[in-house]
Amino acid sequence: MSVNHAPLTPLALLQRTAAVYPGRTAVVYGTRQFTFAAYRERVYRLAQALRTLGIRREERVAVLAPNVPMVLEAHYGIPWAGGVIVAINTRLNAKEVGYILEHSGSRALIADAALLAGLEPIARQLDGLERILVAEDPDAGQGPFWRPPGAQDYEATLAAADAAEPPFPVADEQQSIAIDYTSGTTGAPKGVVYTHRGALLNAVNDGLQNGLDARSVYLWTLPMFHCNGWCFSWAAPGLGATSVCLRQVEARRVRDLIVQHGVSHFCGAPIVLQMLAQLAEAEPFRFETPVRSATGGAPPSPTLLAAMQRLNVQVTHLYGLTETYGPCTVCEVQEDWAGLPVDALADRMARQGVPHLLAGELNVLDAQGRPVPRDGKTMGEVCLRGNTVMKGYFRDPGATDKAFQGGWFHTGDLGVVQADGYIALRDRSKDIIISGGENISTIEVENVLAAHPDIAEAAVVSRPDDKWGEVPVAFVALKPGRTLTAAAVIAFCREQLAHYKCPQDVIFEALPRTSTGKVQKFALRERLWAGHASRIQGA
Amino acid sequence: MSVNHAPLTPLALLQRTAAVYPGRTAVVYGTRQFTFAAYRERVYRLAQALRTLGIRREERVAVLAPNVPMVLEAHYGIPWAGGVIVAINTRLNAKEVGYILEHSGSRALIADAALLAGLEPIARQLDGLERILVAEDPDAGQGPFWRPPGAQDYEATLAAADAAEPPFPVADEQQSIAIDYTSGTTGAPKGVVYTHRGALLNAVNDGLQNGLDARSVYLWTLPMFHCNGWCFSWAAPGLGATSVCLRQVEARRVRDLIVQHGVSHFCGAPIVLQMLAQLAEAEPFRFETPVRSATGGAPPSPTLLAAMQRLNVQVTHLYGLTETYGPCTVCEVQEDWAGLPVDALADRMARQGVPHLLAGELNVLDAQGRPVPRDGKTMGEVCLRGNTVMKGYFRDPGATDKAFQGGWFHTGDLGVVQADGYIALRDRSKDIIISGGENISTIEVENVLAAHPDIAEAAVVSRPDDKWGEVPVAFVALKPGRTLTAAAVIAFCREQLAHYKCPQDVIFEALPRTSTGKVQKFALRERLWAGHASRIQGA
Repeated sequence: MSVNHAPLTPLALLQRTAAVYPGRTAVVYGTRQFTFAAYRERVYRLAQALRTLGIRREERVAVLAPNVPMVLEAHYGIPWAGGVIVAINTRLNAKEVGYILEHSGSRALIADAALLAGLEPIARQLDGLERILVAEDPDAGQGPFWRPPGAQDYEATLAAADAAEPPFPVADEQQSIAIDYTSGTTGAPKGVVYTHRGALLNAVNDGLQNGLDARSVYLWTLPMFHCNGWCFSWAAPGLGATSVCLRQVEARRVRDLIVQHGVSHFCGAPIVLQMLAQLAEAEPFRFETPVRSATGGAPPSPTLLAAMQRLNVQVTHLYGLTETYGPCTVCEVQEDWAGLPVDALADRMARQGVPHLLAGELNVLDAQGRPVPRDGKTMGEVCLRGNTVMKGYFRDPGATDKAFQGGWFHTGDLGVVQADGYIALRDRSKDIIISGGENISTIEVENVLAAHPDIAEAAVVSRPDDKWGEVPVAFVALKPGRTLTAAAVIAFCREQLAHYKCPQDVIFEALPRTSTGKVQKFALRERLWAGHASRIQGA
Repeated sequence: MSVNHAPLTPLALLQRTAAVYPGRTAVVYGTRQFTFAAYRERVYRLAQALRTLGIRREERVAVLAPNVPMVLEAHYGIPWAGGVIVAINTRLNAKEVGYILEHSGSRALIADAALLAGLEPIARQLDGLERILVAEDPDAGQGPFWRPPGAQDYEATLAAADAAEPPFPVADEQQSIAIDYTSGTTGAPKGVVYTHRGALLNAVNDGLQNGLDARSVYLWTLPMFHCNGWCFSWAAPGLGATSVCLRQVEARRVRDLIVQHGVSHFCGAPIVLQMLAQLAEAEPFRFETPVRSATGGAPPSPTLLAAMQRLNVQVTHLYGLTETYGPCTVCEVQEDWAGLPVDALADRMARQGVPHLLAGELNVLDAQGRPVPRDGKTMGEVCLRGNTVMKGYFRDPGATDKAFQGGWFHTGDLGVVQADGYIALRDRSKDIIISGGENISTIEVENVLAAHPDIAEAAVVSRPDDKWGEVPVAFVALKPGRTLTAAAVIAFCREQLAHYKCPQDVIFEALPRTSTGKVQKFALRERLWAGHASRIQGA
């Protein structure tokens, strides 16, 4: 900090907002509400508690919880202690969580009581953590839940901690603020590192692009563990928006919260919008004031857009990856689209679009690294560079170098550029399925299948799905003389993988191979996607 | 530029906006209109012309013009050549302009034809410039105007230049982008240096704080030479807003342009709002859609706020200095002010408020550098630090060090902090008068007066003024046996100073002194401000 230079960080936003709007509601959850003054105090107490524990600059603290207020507190409290938040996907199983705790080198874990109970299978590993804080939630269903010995109560820890503002922990804006684990092409999830600078710029863009400000009310339908809620976990409190927390996304509850709290913004995969659309079919309703919703992971369909227009929900289509702090492109709606029929509008809006205001450069490059022509036909890989590309993969310089080859971040997504410069995705080069907005590594699933004693080999590919966008399907070749049912294969997977990663269907047959012996996953995918113009649902 | 780091600069915003909205109107002036594609091409051509001239990184190019499209082009075109824009106050006289050209070391000048003619008295100095570009304006009244030999036509220069995108000129976000000359406490104006990083962050804040985006239409009532139009000269084109240019601020024209072009935003000193209010008294009108107006330089009065409510103009009160890229605070309107009667609302809105979203830290410090209590009574100096404080004074490390003493930028403004943390100005410690939003150095005026053969000594202080906020008044002691009229003193000043700097009134008397012989300017001011609660108009 000098007279004319301060590190860019979301923490400065919260300092300002809490000072300017101390009495405004920062967080709502069930019957609990915190003002910004109270929220900031809880953030400071959490940071002080972590400092007392000895958390130092860039040390990791993991968080495992649904969208309850504690996670929003952790997004500021952990960095305010100088630490790095590792928000873990709540749909992972105990073993998968264990891998992330281990790989991130997390020194502490803050967990929702109900979810912590699910970690009993890795109880011994949890012993290695220096501190476990348990946040009880009366809305979580009946307890008491199992908890590891020595785990401490989150509320009691906060109450016992110093409420004073901790020393400002950001010396350098390139300091890490978060690590987000994502399934990549290789089986093991990779830790994507975010910096304070990148998080601030994305949070600011969330405000600019969505009109989020101190009059907004933001509903937490998007998981906070998912790219830190596309950086809204910093943007909403930082810009003074009220956060309405939500343990579970359920259509009636979403509708009621929007009405009850005057929600102005929410985000999520199209499935969240679909839920609302279906509910409105059964019980017609329309929001009195317009609600803005940013959606990504799959493009919104014409049917969905039309339904949202009826509900008074204004949809923005975004695209991004964990490696880009969430959204890096936005399908900007042009003024002359206003009069279009919904089909034509949906056609335009299905595209991933253009880089957001602070995202830097976007390009679709051919194999030689040259930009493809704007013909809507020539495919290339979607590549990015700028301030909102990750710092790198945690403890994986090889993977980082590979992703950054040639001076661009390679998304692994294949697309075209249309005449107006908007990109449209067509396929993925990586072995990734995106289901309900979450990445699934097909190789990770194949590795599990290959370990089954009756399976000779397996290939996992995506199949289009109206609800989830895509779902994984397994092609399995059995060892000679063995028999297996699809249900048995799925059950086997569920023992080792989060349920959403497991095949929805199993097809038993010999796998097609290339002349060099490589499994033709492409050919398998073509069969499941017959009749679809592209190989990404809705695109 | 690396994969995950790019210099923060407004240039990146324009690149994106021109790519996304090529057909949208970027600039309107009279019957001329440019799309963003055309505007970008003109920016590129200007940059290429300057590159051909040999302008290199951080070299200065001066601009002298009212709010015509050329100035908006120069704000991007000069930096795109790597240069630094020096936008000169159009109200200065030839000698004053000459000082700035000299001190800034400007290598070229781009000037409006009518204003360039006013520089005939410094014709010899202009010979020293390597290039003078003249922008003709059919709206400027009858020419032909005098122009220095060798001056070239701006449009012809653009037409002859390469239209290709120049190489990206920003290697480091701390690179200078502009120098703005401001009257300080010492007589000579000082050059305030802005960086690309600071300009980007202020431009982004303009967007966040005012809801300026690619659906906005911005009317140029605020001079672009004034803190680069509070950085709106980068924000408006950068964020995709249409700029409606305006050679001269005249009430009927402002009203008509707002209606004709659907203006959504404009900025300026309260005098601009006053003009509209007066017009509406004579010819009642009300804008159909709300217009947002940010005002600064003096607080809006209750009468003015009430008038603006009737016109459907939503007023925001800002405060800042040239040294803070324009506004650094905003009087954020709290939700519970909504029902207030206009007097009570104006009372709250008259305060300078809180730092803007990206302004960093604001403090009111006592003589020992300690924050004053929040009692609304204890005065201290308003101090700031953060990314939107200037890089420094150009070629004046002594003045820079002094302004940055103790790790804070010292504004020279005295104020209090109220219970809610909002600051309110009460006085200025520096010898500055702010008249119609422009700084006047009393010492500069005193130096001119002291040079008069009949004047023994003189002191210049401010007097409240309903139209201009404040105006300068001179107290003059004559040499024994001499006589002078007020009119003669004012005429003498006008020979050497811009008219707005000259005393509006002259009072002949011996000057009151302290026991140590120092002129008691404070006592003189007290006489002129009797009956006012503070020593700044409206505060």
